[in-house]
Amino acid sequence: MDKKISDKVISRLTLYHCILSDFINENIEFISSKQLAVRLNVDDSQVRKDISLLNNTGKSRVGYIVKELKASIEKTLGFKKEKKAFIIGAGNLGSALAKYDNFTNYGLNILALFDTDKNKIGKIVNGKKILDINNLHEFAQNNNADIAILTVPREFAQKTAEFLVNAGIKYIWNFTPVVLEVPQEVQVWNENLMGNLLQFTYNI
Amino acid sequence: MDKKISDKVISRLTLYHCILSDFINENIEFISSKQLAVRLNVDDSQVRKDISLLNNTGKSRVGYIVKELKASIEKTLGFKKEKKAFIIGAGNLGSALAKYDNFTNYGLNILALFDTDKNKIGKIVNGKKILDINNLHEFAQNNNADIAILTVPREFAQKTAEFLVNAGIKYIWNFTPVVLEVPQEVQVWNENLMGNLLQFTYNI
Repeated sequence: MDKKISDKVISRLTLYHCILSDFINENIEFISSKQLAVRLNVDDSQVRKDISLLNNTGKSRVGYIVKELKASIEKTLGFKKEKKAFIIGAGNLGSALAKYDNFTNYGLNILALFDTDKNKIGKIVNGKKILDINNLHEFAQNNNADIAILTVPREFAQKTAEFLVNAGIKYIWNFTPVVLEVPQEVQVWNENLMGNLLQFTYNI
Repeated sequence: MDKKISDKVISRLTLYHCILSDFINENIEFISSKQLAVRLNVDDSQVRKDISLLNNTGKSRVGYIVKELKASIEKTLGFKKEKKAFIIGAGNLGSALAKYDNFTNYGLNILALFDTDKNKIGKIVNGKKILDINNLHEFAQNNNADIAILTVPREFAQKTAEFLVNAGIKYIWNFTPVVLEVPQEVQVWNENLMGNLLQFTYNI
């Protein structure tokens, strides 16, 4: 359980998890490594190796037991560990993320959105309120939330990051195309869309 | 130039590129590996190793020449290679991506959005028209575009993917939390937000 799992394996495990959820919806009880492998376009030996990192006991002669394999992934990757967060910027991207109910299954609890726009403050997106960014510090402390999902326009990204740091935020999930300058104790996770795009298209 | 560059390196190179763009905006001529390293929270030996993969000649005693290093990254990663694409689903996420002007700098040319909603068809998002999905096949052929950016709700993801495959699409950039089933000749790039989130939070 304490084996360090690499980023690539975590990424594949979450994709297996998506497939397993679909299988449960379709009332399918068993799944083979081959079925998972085909959907991800990898070798089934890779799938078996990934699954061997889990404490999964749900294996039968006809394949993995879908429900048990799903639960093993959830346990190993800490899906049940609640991660409280809020979205900074209630524009299109912020709203899209607020509407992404799938997050909850992975333990991400988005409490609210924050914006500076008086026309947006007070409105509700998918049951989550848009609050005035000036209330962020107090809100974060009262709710013991320390993950900020940053979706502001690029020209405001660095300034907003500094504001978040001063408000005691420890983790920034950065959707802006700006490499933020923050103190070392603050972790930034870059959602590097450009990097992903170029990884994909590099070999086309 | 033909060295295979790993995904992690591509990701870091695009982040260096963001920093270099900021430096150019601020009229700064030189940058050191240390300056890049601090922003990404990596060792400067890593930065130098990454840059050694480029055909970069812009090195002086006071550091890399910002403009030349930027150009080297663009050349190596094929930023100038035009990639024609369109967005499927003109909801919040589709609109956010359509408004993301940064894509153009990386060679991604988003030609249009497609939707089934009659209230959306005909409208314009950031200069790009929302078209009827039934016109997709013809549009893709006429414009020689073969990348589809999939942002539909999860319950429509698989059906839409099949529609795209039948329309001759070769590459699907998948923003839905569904692992799509497509023929082997079609490449799916999963924008696995859940996987990224869990990579980040795994060690918290």
